[in-house]
Formats: sequence, C-alpha cells, structure tokens
Amino acid sequence: MTADIPHVVIIGGGFGGLSTARKLANKRARVTLIDRRNHHLFQPLLYQVATGGLSPANIAVPLRALFKGDDNVTTLLGDVSNLDLENRQVRLHDGEALDYDALVVAAGAGTSYFGHETEWQERAPSLKSIEDATKIRRRVLLAFEDAERTADDARRAAMLTFVIVGGGPTGVELAGAIAEVAYRTVRGEFRNAHVENTRVVLLEGSPRLLGAFHDDMSARARRDLEQLGVEVVTQAMVETIDDDGVRARIDGGELRIDTTNVFWAAGVRPSKLATALAEQSGAELDRAGRVIVESDCTLAGRPEVFVIGDMARFDQDDAPLPGLAPVAMQQGRYAAKAILARGQERPSRPFRYVDKGNMATIGRGRAVAEVGADGSIRFGGAFAWLAWLFIHLMYLTEFQNRILVLVQWGWNYVTRNRSARLITGASREGPY
Amino acid sequence: MTADIPHVVIIGGGFGGLSTARKLANKRARVTLIDRRNHHLFQPLLYQVATGGLSPANIAVPLRALFKGDDNVTTLLGDVSNLDLENRQVRLHDGEALDYDALVVAAGAGTSYFGHETEWQERAPSLKSIEDATKIRRRVLLAFEDAERTADDARRAAMLTFVIVGGGPTGVELAGAIAEVAYRTVRGEFRNAHVENTRVVLLEGSPRLLGAFHDDMSARARRDLEQLGVEVVTQAMVETIDDDGVRARIDGGELRIDTTNVFWAAGVRPSKLATALAEQSGAELDRAGRVIVESDCTLAGRPEVFVIGDMARFDQDDAPLPGLAPVAMQQGRYAAKAILARGQERPSRPFRYVDKGNMATIGRGRAVAEVGADGSIRFGGAFAWLAWLFIHLMYLTEFQNRILVLVQWGWNYVTRNRSARLITGASREGPY
Repeated sequence: MTADIPHVVIIGGGFGGLSTARKLANKRARVTLIDRRNHHLFQPLLYQVATGGLSPANIAVPLRALFKGDDNVTTLLGDVSNLDLENRQVRLHDGEALDYDALVVAAGAGTSYFGHETEWQERAPSLKSIEDATKIRRRVLLAFEDAERTADDARRAAMLTFVIVGGGPTGVELAGAIAEVAYRTVRGEFRNAHVENTRVVLLEGSPRLLGAFHDDMSARARRDLEQLGVEVVTQAMVETIDDDGVRARIDGGELRIDTTNVFWAAGVRPSKLATALAEQSGAELDRAGRVIVESDCTLAGRPEVFVIGDMARFDQDDAPLPGLAPVAMQQGRYAAKAILARGQERPSRPFRYVDKGNMATIGRGRAVAEVGADGSIRFGGAFAWLAWLFIHLMYLTEFQNRILVLVQWGWNYVTRNRSARLITGASREGPY
Repeated sequence: MTADIPHVVIIGGGFGGLSTARKLANKRARVTLIDRRNHHLFQPLLYQVATGGLSPANIAVPLRALFKGDDNVTTLLGDVSNLDLENRQVRLHDGEALDYDALVVAAGAGTSYFGHETEWQERAPSLKSIEDATKIRRRVLLAFEDAERTADDARRAAMLTFVIVGGGPTGVELAGAIAEVAYRTVRGEFRNAHVENTRVVLLEGSPRLLGAFHDDMSARARRDLEQLGVEVVTQAMVETIDDDGVRARIDGGELRIDTTNVFWAAGVRPSKLATALAEQSGAELDRAGRVIVESDCTLAGRPEVFVIGDMARFDQDDAPLPGLAPVAMQQGRYAAKAILARGQERPSRPFRYVDKGNMATIGRGRAVAEVGADGSIRFGGAFAWLAWLFIHLMYLTEFQNRILVLVQWGWNYVTRNRSARLITGASREGPY
C-alpha cells in the first residue's frame, strides 16, 4: 500500500456502495468493492420481475462490468464475516483479511418479520433479491395453475386470494401488479379457474398507505388501487400467518382471510454488520437497529469509517432520513469526496440530503409523485406514471441495457403482455 | 365428451406437442395439453442463456399465452405418472386420470450419462432446461470469480479450464460461447485472474464434430472453434469425471485435464414414458431407448396413439430421423391432420420428413449450414451466421417478444456485451 494512496474498502454494491465506488474510480484511491452478489440490483423494479413484466437481467448489472475500465477499483465476490475496527481490517468468510485506510459500510437492510421470522419467513416471502422475485413469481403463477386443477370451491377461492402485507411503495406496487396479472394478463388463459374472482388484499398497519407521502397522495393511491380491484385494509396488524391464511387485528375486531399466497413488504432490518459497528465503537443503534452516525456520516470516534444508506440513522431537521436509494447515493458520493478531500487535508462539510421528490407507481399507467423541496408539488395519474418511468429509466444509467428495458416496457404496455411469466426453480412448491 | 368431437391428449409442450396442439386449435377436437412446465422452451438458444447473452424469458413463452384465444385447447401443468393404453387413460401424478380418444406422446428426451448418472450428473451438468442453463451460467461466472480470489497457481489454472463433453451442435455452440466470454466479455474485468489464460476444451468421442453434417462442415466448425481459442479433441472417450477433472481415453493414450468445470452435451435418453408405451403395446424400443413407430407415427396395434419427436424412432430411406426440432414439428402437424382426417374417415398417407437443412453456430458471427434436399448446398462464415439468426428468429414466431430478442442480440453483437451475466441461485456452489 502506498502511503499517499489510501486503500478504501467498500462493503456492499447497492446504491450507496456503488455511488461511492464510482466517485472514487480513477481518483487517488485504491478501491476494493465487496459484495455477496456479482450484480448491482435496481430494487425499485423488483416487483416487475415478481409479476413477470421484466427479466432479472433487465434490472441487474454485473458489478465487474461497471468498473471494467477503472483499474483502481477491484471487485470481490465475498461475504464479510466480521470487522476489526481497531486494526482496520475486514474479514471475509473464507478467512481472508483486508486492511483498509478508509471503510465505507453500505451493506443495506434485509427483511424484518417483527420477531416472527421462523413462522412467517417461508410462508410470506419478501422482495429483496432476484431469488425472492422469482420465488414470488413462481408462487403467483402456480396459484392460478393450482386453481385451474382443483375441484374444491373453497380451496380454489383461497388459491385465488393474494394478501400483501405492508402498504409502503413495494406493497402498493406489488398489489397493483398482481391485480393486473389476475384481471388483465391471464384473462382468457384458464378454462376452470375463474381468475376474474381473484382477490388481492393489501394490509397496512398504519391508518394510511405510503406513509412517507402527503395525505392527498395516500388517498389517491388507495383510490387508484381500489379501481384496479385491490381491497385495501388499513390499521390491520397481522397476528398469525399459517397454511390456511392470515389473521389480522383490525379497528374494532378481527379479520380472517383464507389464502395460500401471502407476500411480505412490511419491515426492514439493517445488516448484521450494524451490531458489530456499534459494539466496536461508541456509536449507538436506534430502535430500528440502524447505526446512529455523525454529521459527516462517520462512526463516532472512527473518522475513517463511514456508514451509509439503509444501515445508517441520520437525522436531518429533527427527523431521520428515509431508507431510499437517493439518500444512499448522495451519502455515497459525500463519503467518496470526504475521503479524497482528507488526502488533501481539506475539511469536509456535514452531509445534507437534498430531497428531489418521491414517487410510487400503482399499476399500468398510474402513479403518485411529490416533488419540490417540501413535497409541495403533488400529482398523480398518467403524467406521474410517465415521470416515474422516465426517472427510473434515467436511474438505470448504470445499466447498459436501459434501452432494452424501455423497449420491453413499451411492448408490455401496448400489448398488456407479461412475457417473463416463467415458473422456474428446482422443486415445485405449494399444495399441488 | 361428445361422440363426434374427439378428446385429444397431448403429453409435452415441446416442439412436437406444441405443433400438434396449434394444428388442432379451433378445429373439431377437444385438446388437453399437459406439460410439467408452464412454458415452451426454445432449446436451440439455451446455450445463450448459459453464457449470459439472453435471459430465460427471451427463449421461453408461457404455454397458456399461446392458446389464450383457442377455447378448445386446455393447458394443464402436470406430471404424467403412467399410461393405461387399454383403457385409454393418462394418469397424472396427483391421481387425476384423463380419458382420451387420441393420444399424442411427445415427452422428449433427457440427458444420458451412459450409465454414470450417479457420479457424473452433479459434476457435469447438462443443458436441457432453464434451470440447467442458469446453473451452468452460475458455474462459469463463479469459476472466474474463484480464480480472481485464489493465490494457488495450479488451482487457478483448473478453475480457468472449461471442458465440454460432446461435439454435437450444443457442445460446439457452448464451447464457442464460453471462449467468447473468457477472451472477449470479461477481458479487463479481473485484476488477478489472468482470464486470457483460460482453456476451453471440447471433447468428442467420434472422429469429427457435428456428426450429422457433411465432412466439410465438420472441418470448418473445428477450424472456426480453434480460431476462437477452443482446443478440440476428437476420438476422446471420457472415462472418469471427479472433483479434480476429467480423464479420457484418446487415440494412442490417455488425456488428463485438471478442471473444476465440466459440462455435458453428449448423450440423450428418451422420456421414461417410452418404456410404458413399449410394455403396453407390441412396439419395441431401439438401442437408444426410442419407441419404434409405424409409418404413420402411431404405436403398433394402437392406431389412436401417436409417438413423435425425440421419443420416437422413425426410419426413412433406411436411416433413423435425427432428434431435431423440425422433425418433431412436422410429425406433430402430421399427427394432428391424421386425427382430424379420421373423424372424417379419410385415409392418411405415411409420414415423410422434408429436410430443409441443418445449421449450427460457432461463436459471434460464424456458423455452418447445409441446405437443399440432400444437404448439397453448404456454406459457413458470416453469411451462415446471418441465415442462422434469421431462421432462428423466424422459429421464434410463437414468441411475442421476437423483436426484443433481435434487439438484445443486435445490442450484444455491437457492444460485445453479455448483460445477463447474473450469478443467481439460493446457495453458492463450488470450492469457495
């Protein structure tokens, strides 16, 4: 290691880690980017893979391909097993240890089942990885297949009931897309199943959908979903999920839904590395398990360690920043600049998130959007959907196949077709 | 069941079964098409999925989507466990039994490891399904990742050695595509692996590649592959495959190749239903296990049972027809016509295969082709490749996303990019 050129280790190739690495590419730094996956995943479009609208390769790009020409960036496919902040070392699963001068921890978040991991995880898959998406796709498609085969009316009704737990953007988008598959895509393809009787139920614990948005937008999202045929139940707290269905506590009673298809979009839990970071530094974890970071995104007492993205708790104007891609990306670029600036001994200003807006899509051709510094400009409908599409495609700037995604989408939109409706996986799941 | 309208059960949604069903769509027949998969797969392009050039959805189409408007065709996702030819029944895995008036068995072929299934199957995956293709893709990509991580030179050399067993079209295409990935696609993406030292070895038991083609074309394919950097070894009989590599008997000695990557493209074995068909009729199986059928593609003594495609042994001009998609498709259309004609009590002529040619591709922009009644017109190079591309895209006529595949290919061709290079699958395989 050259004394002048710092070795920067970045853990995680999501939005945060990728932004850091790109900012450091071809700069005065030696960068090692570690991820358990060989690809960066555009998570906001995972629900499209889960419902057969896009292929995994449309929304994922090999990390190596992104740094092909950047000789100062090394990509490692590996699993970080532990950190040693005292000795500035990252330990990998296979025993290898990497020394660092600066560390950027951007390991993201997994799914939280609020303490019910063992009972609910298998029954109600979440939507975080490509494997999750193809698993949900398989379950959705098999549900219709099973309904086609059964002679039992009650059983068929349960097979044709889809419950999505969690009314944030992922839950709203997934519910809307499943409704479209049931009422549009597979219409006319089944002879016995009566897919027009499909129920799609979205359960949300709080009083409204899309809690991060303005009330108006929540109401609009609800109305749009209901027009698509989705039943929206707010203030519904899931209590049990078993082979027969879901039981939730609702305002003034209990809701029981017989279903074989439950999908989870309710809770997130930061990477386990958050605990290691807190234990080895003076930093604390917030209630959600995120690492509370300093105003420059570093760990208390460890100015060479940055924690960014979904793992970090960063308060701005007395409120924590949300777990969104733009937050992670801005923090990543900030961390990269700070690392480079220190080499030149310049002070760095505190991090400040610039909110450029928030959007969620609700089925084909509809979305809600908030833009402006305080979210004061709000709109919905087709225009919001086009804005959503445009911005998401621009975000796919890392993806050499951005144009292909646009063509695929245009095609799907015009033909109402979902050509990626493949049931894959080694073993068939479910009752049949 | 109406006496006038026969119930036709078709087992298998491959090229043969699909052609039968399409020919019967909206005709005087009630059709039930059964497949274990929900999709028809364009197998000739599977090697492109295995090497990250195309996504699974580019070469697969949901069977239901193909018969959306055809009310007389019912698609069943199911596994046939047995046949009862005497009582004209097909039994499914879940106990359901279907009565038929006519049966078309088009269940295709799986892979044969020539009696070494238990030792070789896991070590040397074959290329028959989407899962096979993503498994091979994962292994190829992980081999480079592992080579990047190891410090052991001998181990790295074994990781960067790819052995393909079988010099038919699949083996030739897979070997050419892996060579392109190693020498073109991933060049510049690895810092330590020295991917330029990759070895790709194609082993063929007979004296030449592409045995179904003319000698000239075999020689040309070999030359083209060698120019791409593939080592071709003919008259090589594989004797062992273990964790360290492959041992083969060659002309005048023994060949030992240290490798962690062996792929199997050598042998096929007809569906197990062939045995049931033979046992319950007067028909015999040939040495390859195929059902020897009558001149009208029916089973001896069972004029209502057709056996077509890779499961059937049909001799024409004193030679068996090869296991190719066009053979299965022509037999499928013939069977459909024969079934409809019997309803009208017209005699049907014996089946006769019309050979329209044969082609195989050898890497980017090169192919070999034979056309004409006796294969007398033979050509190779870029023109053959364009012809190959055009004909394969025309075959994809069933696929609503044919244009998308063309765009994807054009993109890959121009950019030398393979954007579908995703390592997916629940668990990581291999030494690391």
